[in-house]
Amino acid sequence: MNPKEIAAQQAVQFIEEGMIVGLGTGSTAYWAIQQIGQRVQAGLHIRAVASSQSSEDLAKQAGIPMVEFSEITSIDLTIDGADEVDDQLNLIKGGGGALLREKIIAFHSKRFIVIVDESKRVEHLGRFSLPVEIVPFASNLTINRLTELDCKPQLRLDNGKEFVTDNGNWIVDCKFEKILLPQELGAQIHSIPGVVEHGLFVQMASSVVVGYKDGSTKILSN
Amino acid sequence: MNPKEIAAQQAVQFIEEGMIVGLGTGSTAYWAIQQIGQRVQAGLHIRAVASSQSSEDLAKQAGIPMVEFSEITSIDLTIDGADEVDDQLNLIKGGGGALLREKIIAFHSKRFIVIVDESKRVEHLGRFSLPVEIVPFASNLTINRLTELDCKPQLRLDNGKEFVTDNGNWIVDCKFEKILLPQELGAQIHSIPGVVEHGLFVQMASSVVVGYKDGSTKILSN
Repeated sequence: MNPKEIAAQQAVQFIEEGMIVGLGTGSTAYWAIQQIGQRVQAGLHIRAVASSQSSEDLAKQAGIPMVEFSEITSIDLTIDGADEVDDQLNLIKGGGGALLREKIIAFHSKRFIVIVDESKRVEHLGRFSLPVEIVPFASNLTINRLTELDCKPQLRLDNGKEFVTDNGNWIVDCKFEKILLPQELGAQIHSIPGVVEHGLFVQMASSVVVGYKDGSTKILSN
Repeated sequence: MNPKEIAAQQAVQFIEEGMIVGLGTGSTAYWAIQQIGQRVQAGLHIRAVASSQSSEDLAKQAGIPMVEFSEITSIDLTIDGADEVDDQLNLIKGGGGALLREKIIAFHSKRFIVIVDESKRVEHLGRFSLPVEIVPFASNLTINRLTELDCKPQLRLDNGKEFVTDNGNWIVDCKFEKILLPQELGAQIHSIPGVVEHGLFVQMASSVVVGYKDGSTKILSN
């Protein structure tokens, strides 16, 4: 088994009967969805919300019952991957472009369980470019301001055209060297009008399950 | 002349030859656009950017040359209206639903001139409901969180359907009683994922031109 699958297997053990479960997006969340599906087939009763159309499709194929946001007031537990995790369990997310919906779901979750393989652990965030979702309107001015935060911003492309998020926005991947103060940086980025959301998830993860190549896992908690 | 028109007439005197000018949206900005058009007809050379399709259309009808955002790096001066102005020249904007684009333009402007009639002046912001632009995804969860900031939020409707902004989002009008700390409230609102922008314009106005019923104007500056 690959480390992501092992970590996902561990993470889905946190799910209990009757829970509203949030489903992340991406290659790690894929494994979680598969294994939640297996638990549902084995008799577990839950309802789920998804952070992307692709995860919703996967969940339905796996036989997981979905619920509308309008029918819930909070989420009991969300499982999602991350692109980077630091020692304080702060995250960079958004490599797959679903950061806004992922952050909305994580924010409204009582517990937010993150699954990663060991390669995602860093001392300081920033090796991975920070994805920032912006509105297309006057985007060059927004990107200029991001540059002033000491990063190299690059508009994400998809086959030569702007990559468009599920919310109709664009993604700018911002290469910082080291992000030493993620909370402060997040507030600075948010203060730029035209920024919809950024991929820094500060003090949001309840636990991080790390999968290793040797088949072991380790649970880090705040 | 009505007080808005008088104030607009005063405000457009700030425009100088060669400037890049930002155009606001709404009933007050309408007068500014008309009067900028008259100055252009009289020989003033400027180029303009607009905060909405409707203002762009008005500007073109008035003969104002428009420029693409991709061709500029900043805006010299923007003229726009406001729904409320307090004694520190902080504003509530967004009654017309264009707050995000208006804020982007104001933020990138070297000078931001606000025109209002006297009825818009208040000691403390909050008599007018604060418009907050949110993404439609999981909107009921976002609205629940806004409620926790001690306001009564109401999703804006248009003929019984959600009002949709130029950016494809929705507007929630949040009734606070008194907004004593607009900067702090703005940061709290921004910390809710799903919020795209809010209508508090804190320390952004360079000057406010107030038009009175008796035909006089008064310029307030920071």
